[in-house]
Amino acid sequence: MKGRLITLEGGEGAGKSTVLQTLREHIESSGIRLQVTREPGGTALGEAIRAIVLDPELGTVCAESELLLMFAARAQLVRELIRPALERGEWVLADRFTDASFAYQGGGRGQPGARIEDLEVWAAEGLRPDLTILLDLPVSLGLARAGERGRPDRIEAERGEFFERVREAYRRRADADPHRFRVIDASRPLPRVTADAIAAVDALVADWKP
Amino acid sequence: MKGRLITLEGGEGAGKSTVLQTLREHIESSGIRLQVTREPGGTALGEAIRAIVLDPELGTVCAESELLLMFAARAQLVRELIRPALERGEWVLADRFTDASFAYQGGGRGQPGARIEDLEVWAAEGLRPDLTILLDLPVSLGLARAGERGRPDRIEAERGEFFERVREAYRRRADADPHRFRVIDASRPLPRVTADAIAAVDALVADWKP
Repeated sequence: MKGRLITLEGGEGAGKSTVLQTLREHIESSGIRLQVTREPGGTALGEAIRAIVLDPELGTVCAESELLLMFAARAQLVRELIRPALERGEWVLADRFTDASFAYQGGGRGQPGARIEDLEVWAAEGLRPDLTILLDLPVSLGLARAGERGRPDRIEAERGEFFERVREAYRRRADADPHRFRVIDASRPLPRVTADAIAAVDALVADWKP
Repeated sequence: MKGRLITLEGGEGAGKSTVLQTLREHIESSGIRLQVTREPGGTALGEAIRAIVLDPELGTVCAESELLLMFAARAQLVRELIRPALERGEWVLADRFTDASFAYQGGGRGQPGARIEDLEVWAAEGLRPDLTILLDLPVSLGLARAGERGRPDRIEAERGEFFERVREAYRRRADADPHRFRVIDASRPLPRVTADAIAAVDALVADWKP
């Protein structure tokens, strides 16, 4: 039986790393073989692209180049890691995937949706997650939390209105595909957020017959 | 008056670097302001991408990622350097441009032509050279010449049949657009090759009224 692809999405300061770690432990403790990836990254090529695209020193990166770089990393990740793992019946938990391009490069940078949909088809092989967990919270709260961390990367250094557009684009994606998305209010205390994330995953785990 | 874009294309061992240097000196000696660029590269982002895409140590890079990386570098190059230079009335001499993607990622790697045409429109702003000089020579001769140089990069390390497909794709591009292309037989001694390249450029120089 083909494995399951779960993606975790959300803006800055949403608690994505903690939720990811909790989900990882929860899924593995159910006896499911799991691969955890991140974007951009997850392969040798992807990590090299990550170092470029998030480099705060690099200077100007046009919106088109940023979109192309994200899909260059994703194309390799799908072919080298995600698709083979799913074919082996393993699960994949991905820290961001194509929805992030619709949110950041589409909503944030204004790249047309049709362009991103086209790249999704041929570069990401049209692969869609079985479940996407969106950690949603007001931008001001997320940025305040993220500000307590170290130096921001090139994309994190954007202004508030950029992240408002990112959040809106994420929410539109979720509204348009309620069967795939589970939106979690990430403004609440983290234990409640992780509990909701585990509940979302448990529906898939209960259905799973390896 | 808008400047002129001249691109130089060709396979391994065709003498591209020497021809580029000769053309540079010739055009500049005509009193024309000239920018010289290379692909992938030509900008901070492009050079960082070049270091990735040609790295012989990186391991697997799928054809889709290679195509996306080439256009990520090109999108930035067009917006940051080529288009502004042309608008200022300067000329641009480019060591490879979009024809190279049709040849290497299209002919060589089998990426569909329609996909590359689509990227050309939105990532490279549909920019077409005023003149493209194609240095054409038999693959075996080119590889023998290139073999006298140092260690090959990731793409140079491909096999002969790959470069046969690249050469055929270049020649098809030239056949389809004889007004833009000037095909030069690069199997001849280098002084004759550079003389033909200068003659090709001189037609543009004679027409030029800054």
